[in-house]
Amino acid sequence: MATTRIEHDLLGDREVPGSAYYGVHTLRAVENFPISGITVSAYPDLVNALAAIKQAAARTNQELGLLSPTLADAIERACELVRTGRAHDQFVVDVIQGGAGTSTNMNANEVIANLALELLGHEKGQYGELHPNEHVNMSQSTNDVYPTALKVAGYVGVQGLIEAMEVLRAAFHDKAVEFADVLKMGRTQLQDAVPMTVGQEFSTYVVMLEEDILRLREAAQLILEINLGATAIGTGINAHPDYAKKVCEHLGRITGIGFLTAPNLVEATQDCGAFVQLSGVLKRVAVKISKVCNDLRLLSSGPRAGLGEINLPPMQAGSSIMPGKVNPVIPEVVNQVAFEVIGNDLTISFAAEAGQLQLNAFEPIIAHSLFKSVSHLRTAMLTLAERCVRGITVNREALRHSVQSSIGLVTALNPYIGYVNATLIAQEALLTGASVYDLVIQKQLLSAQQLDQILRPEVLTQPRVQLRLQ
Amino acid sequence: MATTRIEHDLLGDREVPGSAYYGVHTLRAVENFPISGITVSAYPDLVNALAAIKQAAARTNQELGLLSPTLADAIERACELVRTGRAHDQFVVDVIQGGAGTSTNMNANEVIANLALELLGHEKGQYGELHPNEHVNMSQSTNDVYPTALKVAGYVGVQGLIEAMEVLRAAFHDKAVEFADVLKMGRTQLQDAVPMTVGQEFSTYVVMLEEDILRLREAAQLILEINLGATAIGTGINAHPDYAKKVCEHLGRITGIGFLTAPNLVEATQDCGAFVQLSGVLKRVAVKISKVCNDLRLLSSGPRAGLGEINLPPMQAGSSIMPGKVNPVIPEVVNQVAFEVIGNDLTISFAAEAGQLQLNAFEPIIAHSLFKSVSHLRTAMLTLAERCVRGITVNREALRHSVQSSIGLVTALNPYIGYVNATLIAQEALLTGASVYDLVIQKQLLSAQQLDQILRPEVLTQPRVQLRLQ
Amino acid sequence: MATTRIEHDLLGDREVPGSAYYGVHTLRAVENFPISGITVSAYPDLVNALAAIKQAAARTNQELGLLSPTLADAIERACELVRTGRAHDQFVVDVIQGGAGTSTNMNANEVIANLALELLGHEKGQYGELHPNEHVNMSQSTNDVYPTALKVAGYVGVQGLIEAMEVLRAAFHDKAVEFADVLKMGRTQLQDAVPMTVGQEFSTYVVMLEEDILRLREAAQLILEINLGATAIGTGINAHPDYAKKVCEHLGRITGIGFLTAPNLVEATQDCGAFVQLSGVLKRVAVKISKVCNDLRLLSSGPRAGLGEINLPPMQAGSSIMPGKVNPVIPEVVNQVAFEVIGNDLTISFAAEAGQLQLNAFEPIIAHSLFKSVSHLRTAMLTLAERCVRGITVNREALRHSVQSSIGLVTALNPYIGYVNATLIAQEALLTGASVYDLVIQKQLLSAQQLDQILRPEVLTQPRVQLRLQ
Amino acid sequence: MATTRIEHDLLGDREVPGSAYYGVHTLRAVENFPISGITVSAYPDLVNALAAIKQAAARTNQELGLLSPTLADAIERACELVRTGRAHDQFVVDVIQGGAGTSTNMNANEVIANLALELLGHEKGQYGELHPNEHVNMSQSTNDVYPTALKVAGYVGVQGLIEAMEVLRAAFHDKAVEFADVLKMGRTQLQDAVPMTVGQEFSTYVVMLEEDILRLREAAQLILEINLGATAIGTGINAHPDYAKKVCEHLGRITGIGFLTAPNLVEATQDCGAFVQLSGVLKRVAVKISKVCNDLRLLSSGPRAGLGEINLPPMQAGSSIMPGKVNPVIPEVVNQVAFEVIGNDLTISFAAEAGQLQLNAFEPIIAHSLFKSVSHLRTAMLTLAERCVRGITVNREALRHSVQSSIGLVTALNPYIGYVNATLIAQEALLTGASVYDLVIQKQLLSAQQLDQILRPEVLTQPRVQLRLQ
Repeated sequence: MATTRIEHDLLGDREVPGSAYYGVHTLRAVENFPISGITVSAYPDLVNALAAIKQAAARTNQELGLLSPTLADAIERACELVRTGRAHDQFVVDVIQGGAGTSTNMNANEVIANLALELLGHEKGQYGELHPNEHVNMSQSTNDVYPTALKVAGYVGVQGLIEAMEVLRAAFHDKAVEFADVLKMGRTQLQDAVPMTVGQEFSTYVVMLEEDILRLREAAQLILEINLGATAIGTGINAHPDYAKKVCEHLGRITGIGFLTAPNLVEATQDCGAFVQLSGVLKRVAVKISKVCNDLRLLSSGPRAGLGEINLPPMQAGSSIMPGKVNPVIPEVVNQVAFEVIGNDLTISFAAEAGQLQLNAFEPIIAHSLFKSVSHLRTAMLTLAERCVRGITVNREALRHSVQSSIGLVTALNPYIGYVNATLIAQEALLTGASVYDLVIQKQLLSAQQLDQILRPEVLTQPRVQLRLQ
Repeated sequence: MATTRIEHDLLGDREVPGSAYYGVHTLRAVENFPISGITVSAYPDLVNALAAIKQAAARTNQELGLLSPTLADAIERACELVRTGRAHDQFVVDVIQGGAGTSTNMNANEVIANLALELLGHEKGQYGELHPNEHVNMSQSTNDVYPTALKVAGYVGVQGLIEAMEVLRAAFHDKAVEFADVLKMGRTQLQDAVPMTVGQEFSTYVVMLEEDILRLREAAQLILEINLGATAIGTGINAHPDYAKKVCEHLGRITGIGFLTAPNLVEATQDCGAFVQLSGVLKRVAVKISKVCNDLRLLSSGPRAGLGEINLPPMQAGSSIMPGKVNPVIPEVVNQVAFEVIGNDLTISFAAEAGQLQLNAFEPIIAHSLFKSVSHLRTAMLTLAERCVRGITVNREALRHSVQSSIGLVTALNPYIGYVNATLIAQEALLTGASVYDLVIQKQLLSAQQLDQILRPEVLTQPRVQLRLQ
Repeated sequence: MATTRIEHDLLGDREVPGSAYYGVHTLRAVENFPISGITVSAYPDLVNALAAIKQAAARTNQELGLLSPTLADAIERACELVRTGRAHDQFVVDVIQGGAGTSTNMNANEVIANLALELLGHEKGQYGELHPNEHVNMSQSTNDVYPTALKVAGYVGVQGLIEAMEVLRAAFHDKAVEFADVLKMGRTQLQDAVPMTVGQEFSTYVVMLEEDILRLREAAQLILEINLGATAIGTGINAHPDYAKKVCEHLGRITGIGFLTAPNLVEATQDCGAFVQLSGVLKRVAVKISKVCNDLRLLSSGPRAGLGEINLPPMQAGSSIMPGKVNPVIPEVVNQVAFEVIGNDLTISFAAEAGQLQLNAFEPIIAHSLFKSVSHLRTAMLTLAERCVRGITVNREALRHSVQSSIGLVTALNPYIGYVNATLIAQEALLTGASVYDLVIQKQLLSAQQLDQILRPEVLTQPRVQLRLQ
Repeated sequence: MATTRIEHDLLGDREVPGSAYYGVHTLRAVENFPISGITVSAYPDLVNALAAIKQAAARTNQELGLLSPTLADAIERACELVRTGRAHDQFVVDVIQGGAGTSTNMNANEVIANLALELLGHEKGQYGELHPNEHVNMSQSTNDVYPTALKVAGYVGVQGLIEAMEVLRAAFHDKAVEFADVLKMGRTQLQDAVPMTVGQEFSTYVVMLEEDILRLREAAQLILEINLGATAIGTGINAHPDYAKKVCEHLGRITGIGFLTAPNLVEATQDCGAFVQLSGVLKRVAVKISKVCNDLRLLSSGPRAGLGEINLPPMQAGSSIMPGKVNPVIPEVVNQVAFEVIGNDLTISFAAEAGQLQLNAFEPIIAHSLFKSVSHLRTAMLTLAERCVRGITVNREALRHSVQSSIGLVTALNPYIGYVNATLIAQEALLTGASVYDLVIQKQLLSAQQLDQILRPEVLTQPRVQLRLQ
């Protein structure tokens, strides 16, 4: 094999490494965008999505009589190779790139063309036989292929994230069951409020995740609406009238995902709303999981000068200077992922707002930000489940004591001794350090028996009809 | 009437203006939060929502035998007065307040109590007869009343926004119809691409608004889930077991809105997810309407050294120094509202993330930010519709000329002369200033008759089967 | 006085209320921008700044022989009236407005013209005598007047903010002194670390505020660079060559602030960098004061089931349901202001980025956001100082006990018993609940006397040479 | 060499690959944080900074008699090896990590210890001879080492960014000189305003970059204040009283950078203000370079249906479907980097605000975000300079024509024909398409000779005394 081959584009001739499946357009792009050092190959779902789209297009073009069976077949087989992981390392363009994704699309066209050429027994670069633009890209434009690829890859990614959230949800659920009978003081505004169970506390994380999963599913549905067939600006110039419908069906068959063609392709081609929406939901997920991690860190603070309610499993030594110190490193890393996701959402908002007229040229940074958010949230959720939540234990004794000694118990006495008496008791308890229980008895407002009846855990942590005290 | 009366709270005695319907708790709050100068009364929907909730609670408490018919009736009538606009000026606490909304809830309790006292023939402040906390606030806590009030008010506000968006949608739709046959050059990345119609361009704004309305409706549904009955932390302490269900039904009847009680009240009490979600959708709306306004400003740039495709109606003199200058002031103000909404969304994200354990203490700033976003977007949408879009005209001649002289036409020739020839034609046209049409004829690639057939507007702006040229 | 008068602009004739000092341009703007309901008069510093600029311009124009002494004098006197608070209610344009501030500038021109007309014995509206545009706006353009006014007002506002921060700094400083000898456990990652004093802890807030004040002073310096004389786009068209220098000097004399003329007026006219920088520093201030408030809320959590290290002064009843509950309402409101400021900063970033070519049309929302941030931070800082920090007390006994019982003490033993022994002690202490002190003695690693020497507070909370144990 | 070795930490024994220079703590961290796949080695400046700090510490410890010359020398030599690029691949912890940087510090301690062990002729892992914590980390804590390392690396990175900005500044400066005499229409609010030169337009980019460089230099100064000697929380526990001063001096000598020890180490240890400030300035840089790129894309829009004022050099084929299309890919990629930087700034704000009490546990995400911003901005600036700005050409003829035919010229006539006449001329010109020049002559307001005198380019683009017309 020659060590280089010559390819040509509108800037002139150019040597390409002989072993490269990519071509001149890719090479120009690599040189033009030396930005982050992270290449498109870092997103295998995106590479696979591009291959699935090219495959669907080839099949459609053949059906419409636009592409010969030989070429179509070679392209299809090349695409399948890519989808099994072949040649992913040939997707070498920086993820942060100008040109609205053109370079990524060109990269895919070139790699698939050269793979197909080899399958047909030709050398790489013999584009007279099978051309990246004319054949692999037939009936397509970057402006329909690239956003569709983002949607395919985004959808796949979100499914993975949802699976991870299910794992975390299950971990919290198990803990909610395990701690269902452990009484503790609830807090509002970090001040002691009224009793609840640790199970109730953990159940909120379960519900929160369930709701977030629902929201993610809804948002994921919105990115199933694609614009293949739009070509350059959505008018479908140079596309066959039946192309859009057929290619969408083929893409659905190839990926197993139920895509729809957008009703207004001009709008769909310029629109980034579905990405903004999805990212907004990811931001919501981030905001809420961050709050959960804040709670976990707070509840496990100590071991002696903190709240000390729960214990996170120790995962590593916490300090290079303080012997025996263990830190909540897993919630901390999840917090940081959340902060990153929130930042990514802003990047996406900026990029979406900057779209002009018939296209948004900034989809590459939208993609990069979105894929990072999805992927980091996924690993963060799994890590939180497996390396933290599953190992959480609770300090029952300390919690029981904190309820018994709490001033907040007085709230439960309201209906029996009145708000005014209750306030006086609370203030005296705070001042003297005495317990509410003792003070009430001492002031003969209620008997010990009555208090025990009122303050039974099972009546403190749920609504109830006012007791008839004996 | 005495010029002042004395009220009492846990900090001691305090003079309250005799004419004031609010009481000591409100007064403390006014002094504690001298932040923005904007009072809760600036949000009438919120004041009305509070009154509706207090009314529903009174009715429920009476039904459950907890509140006498006399008191319940007086409270209900007071609430109805508030809902007709009475005493709104008595909601004097700053919208930016500490205490998780307690001061707003206390403000409502006091105003309604004093209105009710007067209805019962008492003086204001005679809380022995009817007490703000014991009776108006019965079975309630700030922590269920306040978020529920935000949801009621938010829902009402969003309906108003959606109506405004419908008006704007209709305005764009009329223009899309009016300009359905006006050919123009579409642009990607601000570079001339391929032809389209102005009608197609404006139709994208119609579709965009329709989708945004759908998303808003979905997000508004999520805030129908309320937590009345949760009391302090969601455990329902001191609430009757039937209270939650009944109060939700009464609130629905009073407001005509279909609220639901959240299945897990502990979760619902600490959760701000629905606000984050709604604000995220408002951010989406902002991002997209800002893009539309960017387009309008760009397309109307000129009058001579700009794109000059459309004309916005002149609304005011544009310059204090440049005679005759007219500026796109309406899109500009809408852009700015969009930037504000995006900032508000960030504020909401920060506040939501900062919630701790059983409560989010930062709901007041969430409410303030959300209500501003909803209300400013509403006025912006209406203004854009009435003061800009309805008056837009189009420069047909200039647009026709730009299509005819465009190089982008060459894309339509691809299937007939091939990509290579097409590229050469494009490059020569760019270099020499010649038209694609003339060059193709001059090079005898196609005849004038064939070109006319290929380049007919009706075939340029939609998909088509390749023509059989004669 | 006639109830209305007729004024004229490029849209035609228009009735203006006879009592109004503003004119037709203002009226159009009021109708065009019904956005927020907050008018320019809400920012008195801005109104005064506009008046100061118009005064400086009149004086300069007279000196350059462009404006008659009679007219110049009348304009100057009108401006001075405005600067004493007169006619502020005539600045009726919405703060969120299109037109790059033109309407605010026109509003100022009209009000000042009509005030000057009255001073000269004319009726309002007799612009043939003295014209808003020709005379009040002489040598000016919105594009130099408006950004300059923002800078004047912004500078004044920041000085007020700095004063408030000095008050807060002093409050923290007093507490740092008061608590200088109170030992407590320091915490990293919410886990017990090593001992420190409460004085040290509060001293960090002092230093933080000092640094933030320095940063604010630097950022404020940057907005002293103004572009008066730039006129429309910075080329100074229609301005006298000496105008820029002279007007800057006069503005300095009138306001007492040392303004400079930007070296490149074309750049200065389109540039919003100084506002972005200032807002960035305000964001920094917000981020850090929010962290301080988080700390205060955390340290005062309790009263029994929290850290309970310090007590914030009670400012109001904390709950409508929980008797005696007191919440950290002042830090909470400061947190919320911080969240708002961070959101405002984003709005400013968006608006600044959206500037195009020779002007940024979005300065009104920049101004609105900036002024809100400055003003709310000021009231928040004062409130925090006066209503919270000054009343903080500390729970000495509990803190002393937490140090004595802490495992973190073991860090101080490292140099004497080695890291390995120290780790074993820490682990045993954690497991058994025993104290480090007792375990070390029990294991005969050190004597009680030696331990007392090592663990003296004054050696624990600062660097030291390793002790020679006796 | 054994294929594995056993190391021990507080979780127990653990096999480490025999060839690994990192140890058990690193390995735990790798397993705990499988988040982004990007390892600390991706930031060579950070790895080098850690080595420089460890070297400075070893030298100081030796001077203070705390570390033997043999061990100190071995550590110093190991650090120097790292600083020449050796063993960078051993920094394998994910950049997104919990634990406040402990894992990165532990990673450095272990790699340097094992390198030093080999230099001393021992096997890796023989920590009895030279221990990662006891010797390499002596007198240190993660909480002073890690933030200091971020500052060292950040400072180095910013210098590189400034160099890149100087290159871009020079490129814009050359263009400003080249286009100094090319007249064009200035625009405000995208509407034709008054004439200027292209040189003036490009000079604004020069000034903007100069100012941004100044701001960056100031912000970089702030991160020279370090907290070495603070140890765990800033109290300097277990550090020699002379350590802080000496280690800072040594670090200065080793790196050639003038670091200072913070006056209050407790404050410095918890403070992220300098990072927030630096990131805020990076955001400013991003906002402004994005605006420049927006301008470049706008001015080069076309080639026929756009502004078409300037031409960007073609860098790659612009479309897979539109022959000959060339896009502004370089400004587009810079825009996207700007959006990313703005997002990173938000992440940093969130992380900084989340710090609690004596430490900010979220510095790893601050570092990651900051380093990305610095590095991507650097490559973006260089790319913009070399692949875009240097090749920009201008369409002189079209620009000249646009000035001559412009209505904005009428502004220059104000002083001679009055604002009223000027407005009428402007309106008639707009309506009829006639030129201002012709209309003025036709209406006999000025002679052709007078007009030529007034409209000379050299008088249009700068301030001037009113001409005495002949």
